[in-house]
Amino acid sequence: MKRFIILGSTGSIGTSSLDVIQSNSDHFLAAGLSASTSVEKMCEQIRVYKPEAVSMNDIEAARKVKENVGSLTRVYEGFDGMIEMIRDLDADAVVNGLVGSVGVLPTITALENGKDVLLANKETMVMAGRLVIEAAHRNGRRIVPIDSEMSAIYQCLKGEDAKALKKLILTASGGPFVDYSHEKLRNVTVQQALNHPTWSMGVKNTVDSSTMMNKGLEVIEARWLFDVPGSCIDVAIHRDSVVHSLVEFIDGSLIAQLSKPDMRLAIQYAMTNPERLPSPYGGIDFSVPFSLTFEPPDTERFPCLALAYEALEQEGTAPAALNGANERAVEAFVDGGITFMEIPETIRRVVENHRFIQEPAIEELIDTDTEVKRTMSVLVES
Amino acid sequence: MKRFIILGSTGSIGTSSLDVIQSNSDHFLAAGLSASTSVEKMCEQIRVYKPEAVSMNDIEAARKVKENVGSLTRVYEGFDGMIEMIRDLDADAVVNGLVGSVGVLPTITALENGKDVLLANKETMVMAGRLVIEAAHRNGRRIVPIDSEMSAIYQCLKGEDAKALKKLILTASGGPFVDYSHEKLRNVTVQQALNHPTWSMGVKNTVDSSTMMNKGLEVIEARWLFDVPGSCIDVAIHRDSVVHSLVEFIDGSLIAQLSKPDMRLAIQYAMTNPERLPSPYGGIDFSVPFSLTFEPPDTERFPCLALAYEALEQEGTAPAALNGANERAVEAFVDGGITFMEIPETIRRVVENHRFIQEPAIEELIDTDTEVKRTMSVLVES
Repeated sequence: MKRFIILGSTGSIGTSSLDVIQSNSDHFLAAGLSASTSVEKMCEQIRVYKPEAVSMNDIEAARKVKENVGSLTRVYEGFDGMIEMIRDLDADAVVNGLVGSVGVLPTITALENGKDVLLANKETMVMAGRLVIEAAHRNGRRIVPIDSEMSAIYQCLKGEDAKALKKLILTASGGPFVDYSHEKLRNVTVQQALNHPTWSMGVKNTVDSSTMMNKGLEVIEARWLFDVPGSCIDVAIHRDSVVHSLVEFIDGSLIAQLSKPDMRLAIQYAMTNPERLPSPYGGIDFSVPFSLTFEPPDTERFPCLALAYEALEQEGTAPAALNGANERAVEAFVDGGITFMEIPETIRRVVENHRFIQEPAIEELIDTDTEVKRTMSVLVES
Repeated sequence: MKRFIILGSTGSIGTSSLDVIQSNSDHFLAAGLSASTSVEKMCEQIRVYKPEAVSMNDIEAARKVKENVGSLTRVYEGFDGMIEMIRDLDADAVVNGLVGSVGVLPTITALENGKDVLLANKETMVMAGRLVIEAAHRNGRRIVPIDSEMSAIYQCLKGEDAKALKKLILTASGGPFVDYSHEKLRNVTVQQALNHPTWSMGVKNTVDSSTMMNKGLEVIEARWLFDVPGSCIDVAIHRDSVVHSLVEFIDGSLIAQLSKPDMRLAIQYAMTNPERLPSPYGGIDFSVPFSLTFEPPDTERFPCLALAYEALEQEGTAPAALNGANERAVEAFVDGGITFMEIPETIRRVVENHRFIQEPAIEELIDTDTEVKRTMSVLVES
């Protein structure tokens, strides 16, 4: 029986992870859950999955959950409570389905306490990729990606020698605005940005997908997960979301991973690998004609992608600054504070002007995150 | 230094194999070569590759080669000479680039004499797949496919557990007549059949590709190479010849291998695997837009594919009969003895009426081959 702690259990990745655990209840169980404020959903998950412990980031929410559940489930309070739960609880792996920079410390805590990390929280790797990878190596634990693109590459590299790797090609749906002109992009509404053509995801990831920052963050994530320089990571627009990414090897052979878009497939693979278990997700029907298209991305219309490559090139605190600035920019866009095209513009200004450190410690990365978010808030309000 | 014997060295697979050896002369050498009648080409190859031995299937050709080369290269005569050379010569692997049923005994001889087989000769597996696989297991040797489709599957399965395999999807270019109506297929000329849209191959393989028997033979080959029942092997028409085949796993994830069509890539992979070496072949340019299409095959217009599935289902001598009948039918078509649509018709008649044996020994399979070819010759002349 593999024991999991699910961080962000009431969110998109969390509920999908619990689906997978339920479908494979002979192999998997949810030992711990964590959420932020969703009291009702958490109480329902406690009834269904009977975890040994849960944590609620919001103190008030934690108290309400406590009132509602029996003494069998321990309830931790606040962010520190979540960290404590990760330390205390006996588990094989932590599914990190948190959104944003808040995911970094839980990831490192899990690795340092003998737990693998199944990682959907790409901001962890963007902010602190080098330190997280070092923590994994130091503690002999694995980081297994859950993102469909990262999972695809992880699968394509199976059994291959790292020396044979030439290039990663990350596919991108292109988001809802892939065909929009510069002019049209200026007038994009929040409602339009939240309407993703192929993937069903949370608000942050959906907006990131519409700006293509999502792909930029994945480029940085892939750099650390697979130990490949940014110059060997390409992006291809693939509107069909069937080929989830490809690896080119030094001999000119490419290996690709394909499936219908369903994040439960990547989650299950992260949980079972290197083995595979049957699942009802994925599959492709070859009894009907279909086509798959690929085209290069346009970084002029989608400058967020270029910003990510630049931050990766610069390294140090630059990716953390990019990530923090983007988080606040997305919030500001959703709240109506800035326009769609102001997202990359404000991010660029904030990253260019942040206090750069070449070899930051984890605390300095967290400070960078705090600093750029504060700057961004001032910018947006002015 | 890996030492290879190249069977069919003056043919399409043979010359490509020697290209690969020349490009990787730090790692590979041609210890032995064999051809049928091409004296001039063989003498040239002896000058360039300096093999320790060669064999010529044609006795007269063997004498001419002997007269032309120095005493450093031993020259074997006839089919038995080739078998003797495979036995005698120190080599790691035999590249079997022979065409047709003649490839079976060399394959088994190589395996029984401690040599791996890099197999382009699919007729070997079609005729005697079960016996060849048994010979490989008994002698602890490997059969590594060279066919682009089989190589693709071999690469896709790397690092995966056989238990996780759900389905193989063999891609097919569809050949030059993929869009021809029944009516139009009746009037196909030899010249048209020899004009393959994407692959450059020998005459037999090109005609097999135009009837889709090529894919049928690969279905049978895959059944034995990968130990998968015919019901788990599908065919998809993929005109672009970029995705060379796919594997679907039980969790719904698919892995595909892609490259520009160049048989040297599969040959080099067979020579280097499980490692990879740099090569100028393959690659895909993602800086320009492109699309890949897939559609189900039409076994009504291309009955050879259905015939192959039927022979595989029947097992015993049926696949050997199918293969022998097809070899003679292709010759008859190229010689103008039968029309394009008479290829499947005559094959069906000959397979249905051959002396069926359920568990044939290798001699009985060779007898089946001889018998159906004789019957086919009578049919074609009548």
